[in-house]
Amino acid sequence: MNVKLTIEYDGTNYHGWQVQPNGKTIQEVLEQAIERIVGVKTRLNGSGRTDAGVHALGQAANFTCAVDVEPLRFQRGLNAVTPEDIVVKRVEVVPDSFDARRDARSRTYRYQIWNYPWPSAVHRHFSWHVPYALNLSAMQKALRSLEGEHDFASFQAAGCDAAHSVRKIYHNSLVVKDDVLVYAVEATAYLRHMVRNIVGTLVEVGCGERTGESFAELLQVRDRTRAGSTAPAHGLCLVEVKY
Amino acid sequence: MNVKLTIEYDGTNYHGWQVQPNGKTIQEVLEQAIERIVGVKTRLNGSGRTDAGVHALGQAANFTCAVDVEPLRFQRGLNAVTPEDIVVKRVEVVPDSFDARRDARSRTYRYQIWNYPWPSAVHRHFSWHVPYALNLSAMQKALRSLEGEHDFASFQAAGCDAAHSVRKIYHNSLVVKDDVLVYAVEATAYLRHMVRNIVGTLVEVGCGERTGESFAELLQVRDRTRAGSTAPAHGLCLVEVKY
Repeated sequence: MNVKLTIEYDGTNYHGWQVQPNGKTIQEVLEQAIERIVGVKTRLNGSGRTDAGVHALGQAANFTCAVDVEPLRFQRGLNAVTPEDIVVKRVEVVPDSFDARRDARSRTYRYQIWNYPWPSAVHRHFSWHVPYALNLSAMQKALRSLEGEHDFASFQAAGCDAAHSVRKIYHNSLVVKDDVLVYAVEATAYLRHMVRNIVGTLVEVGCGERTGESFAELLQVRDRTRAGSTAPAHGLCLVEVKY
Repeated sequence: MNVKLTIEYDGTNYHGWQVQPNGKTIQEVLEQAIERIVGVKTRLNGSGRTDAGVHALGQAANFTCAVDVEPLRFQRGLNAVTPEDIVVKRVEVVPDSFDARRDARSRTYRYQIWNYPWPSAVHRHFSWHVPYALNLSAMQKALRSLEGEHDFASFQAAGCDAAHSVRKIYHNSLVVKDDVLVYAVEATAYLRHMVRNIVGTLVEVGCGERTGESFAELLQVRDRTRAGSTAPAHGLCLVEVKY
């Protein structure tokens, strides 16, 4: 049986999605929860990694198991054993061929910026505090050049193990929503730190440190040292994975 | 000098607003922060108490001090010494006569309900998880009878030290916003647990355990034992105090 999970998590207290030797990860907590219920060690195949501190409203993953799973009961069982910062929102039995990583058509991320001189107590775990004034329309204009298929090497972190750096952004936008600046982006897939590097560079446009045109140039020069700094992880959230 | 503070806090880790012998409170943390800056023990006068676990986006308070306070610098100083779950959003020098409690014309609260069968990882500290289906329009209809000046004794917690139980609700509403059910209410003032008792009773209307008409009856009978249970504190947030 091939089972798909849709997962929400508050990544504040985790070392990201993927199992690693040091520090607790989301994948590890979920694999242990599944093992407690189905009785055998299980390997969970996520749609992609998220960095330490990054959140998710709709991460997707699948696993295969020999025993029959009744979706609603299995979901309740998982949520009863996972800590309250990891929630399984949906359990589906899917065709044997389904692969949460390979079959994903697009991933949508959102990045939140708290743009006031003072910090926020309530939003502090889910938004980056940028205390200086930002030029919203300059940022929105700069974003347009990112849409479509481009080589995003300038926004790729060192140590990224991708075979090439061409990705396709279907659309991206920046809006103010309930006092929070929200950057949203849907793309086929992403390079390591790509969204955080785009946001870090975008904020430099917003405070006048670079021009909006430099975004188009960055896609040409393919040079990470020319783009802005990496925005912190805790503003980022994986909203949805489409299949 | 009389100084007014506007304060945001995540109440998760506090025993409410008011100083008390057991457990850390918001008022206490702020009084210690003020003392560190102005150098003398200071008593902060809040617009009203909030219970343990309740949050605020716009609590108001004032204090008098002998030294001159430069608002922006004082705000930065306070935010540098308070923990990150308490933020001073604004500092104003106000007339000597200003009293944050006595002069408040109205307080606006919001109560958030997460109404899905599964819990939420991201909203867990700021919304009450109600897993069964709620009839939104029945709840919205029931609310109308609360508006205006009424005796809210049926919604008053035991131990409330108010002189009488008549209060005036200017308006209240229930809407769905970004996946969350949001109850909002603006009133002159509140009895102890009044908002949480209204929400607990409202949810009983929503799941068919009582009729919408019973809200009007509750205002007549003035009997706490006839209303519903008290909704948990963590869904509640003091949004604004008007002067």
